[in-house]
Amino acid sequence: MNSEKNAPIGVFDSGVGGLTVAREIMRNLPDERIVYFGDTARVPYGSKSKATVLRYSRQIVRFLKTQKVKAIVVACNTASALALDTIEEEIDLPILGVVRPGASVAVQATHNKKIGVIATESTIHSNLYQTLIQREDPEITVYGKACPLFVPLVEEGWTKDSITVEVAKRYLAELLEKDIDTLIMGCTHYPLLRTLLRRILGEQVTLVNPAYETSQALKRMLEELGLENDTHCPAGEKYQFYASDTVEKFNAFANSILPYDIKTTKQIPIEEY
Amino acid sequence: MNSEKNAPIGVFDSGVGGLTVAREIMRNLPDERIVYFGDTARVPYGSKSKATVLRYSRQIVRFLKTQKVKAIVVACNTASALALDTIEEEIDLPILGVVRPGASVAVQATHNKKIGVIATESTIHSNLYQTLIQREDPEITVYGKACPLFVPLVEEGWTKDSITVEVAKRYLAELLEKDIDTLIMGCTHYPLLRTLLRRILGEQVTLVNPAYETSQALKRMLEELGLENDTHCPAGEKYQFYASDTVEKFNAFANSILPYDIKTTKQIPIEEY
Repeated sequence: MNSEKNAPIGVFDSGVGGLTVAREIMRNLPDERIVYFGDTARVPYGSKSKATVLRYSRQIVRFLKTQKVKAIVVACNTASALALDTIEEEIDLPILGVVRPGASVAVQATHNKKIGVIATESTIHSNLYQTLIQREDPEITVYGKACPLFVPLVEEGWTKDSITVEVAKRYLAELLEKDIDTLIMGCTHYPLLRTLLRRILGEQVTLVNPAYETSQALKRMLEELGLENDTHCPAGEKYQFYASDTVEKFNAFANSILPYDIKTTKQIPIEEY
Repeated sequence: MNSEKNAPIGVFDSGVGGLTVAREIMRNLPDERIVYFGDTARVPYGSKSKATVLRYSRQIVRFLKTQKVKAIVVACNTASALALDTIEEEIDLPILGVVRPGASVAVQATHNKKIGVIATESTIHSNLYQTLIQREDPEITVYGKACPLFVPLVEEGWTKDSITVEVAKRYLAELLEKDIDTLIMGCTHYPLLRTLLRRILGEQVTLVNPAYETSQALKRMLEELGLENDTHCPAGEKYQFYASDTVEKFNAFANSILPYDIKTTKQIPIEEY
């Protein structure tokens, strides 16, 4: 374990979506440094196999360890669902995914014990949300729905578009028929559709954003381990960004969702780690 | 050059889309053997940079050479647009992309000298269709439109869906305003939307499918080089399939568009080539 309290948190995702998790960490743990890695040369993970996502995640963890991180956040739902269990057993660093925090909050939120999960195909097929939720409360029924068009719709910028409303109505119809009272947004892009989803779901359904819950779980974990940063870090060094593809598109997206301008993202050859 | 006439043709794509090109080669060059590679662990290429697509394409070409292919077809529009020029200069095998054949036929098809191109973001940004078309006829105007939602819509199976009609109307509106009389389907998935596109475009617009044109260009190339296969190949050995991710999904898609069942696809670690 890297017990340097002022070492950074490693945060990784298949691409840019995990920046929504990084943003929550920045908001809720403002003293912590972050090293973010987005696997933009191999994005997306959501349609790929467990073996492939695990191989990619291991390479990224090896890269983050070269950056002397004190803890790792798997900001990608698919990698959390497919790779985290294995990686946890392999490394000597505290590590946290987005699935467990989201599942726990959903268990607390539901009244009628009917929870919906929207996510990528691979996350839904992993059944991990269902497994974790039912471990906490076996009486809860979990309804999963893969929503493969949501990420491309968000990336097209159509987050308030009538076409996206139609797609969302189609995807959500079967969950609403099941009378869910809680819905987990189980992919990092989906919180960017929050307003639109809210309009279709109505006010009765609690929307769970694992990004926020993960920042809270990270805070508790660092406190328990006595790993909270207690030194001041100059603003320019606080957040470091890395990507596996060229960085122009990464920076453009990052600048659209983070509260300050990113210019210093570096490209690294992740296949070599 | 591998002058073995009975060696296979290497065909590669970022994933399964290039099977539409392989299918045309099977139909129009029924005596030729094929080794197909789909980069399903890193798909898609259409949103990635030139440098990354070139690196991936070089690895695949190295793999195909280990399979003793006599010629290579780049069945991916994005790889044809971003990597083919460089790779052509590096290898000693005849190689052919899908962009040039599609561009040539569009030049012959247009009457009003207004051609539309629909393709991935990276293909459109490369401007290669425009460059090649205007090299043949500088008076032609080319209008490009990136259609990033078409591939996920096809993969969702919504090829005849009202939502796909709405998306296509949106994408095609600006091309129709320009009064194009010819439209190149510049991504291997798009021919699977042919019926829907035809309905929106009307009968006046000629739809160009580079997959078919590429099979014809391949035929001419093999004839010119005296490389046509003149031996009989047992059916079971004729077509070999490889993918970089696990093969279940690949086989499912392949079996939906090829006229026979695929069972023997092998996974290979393409990063190591």
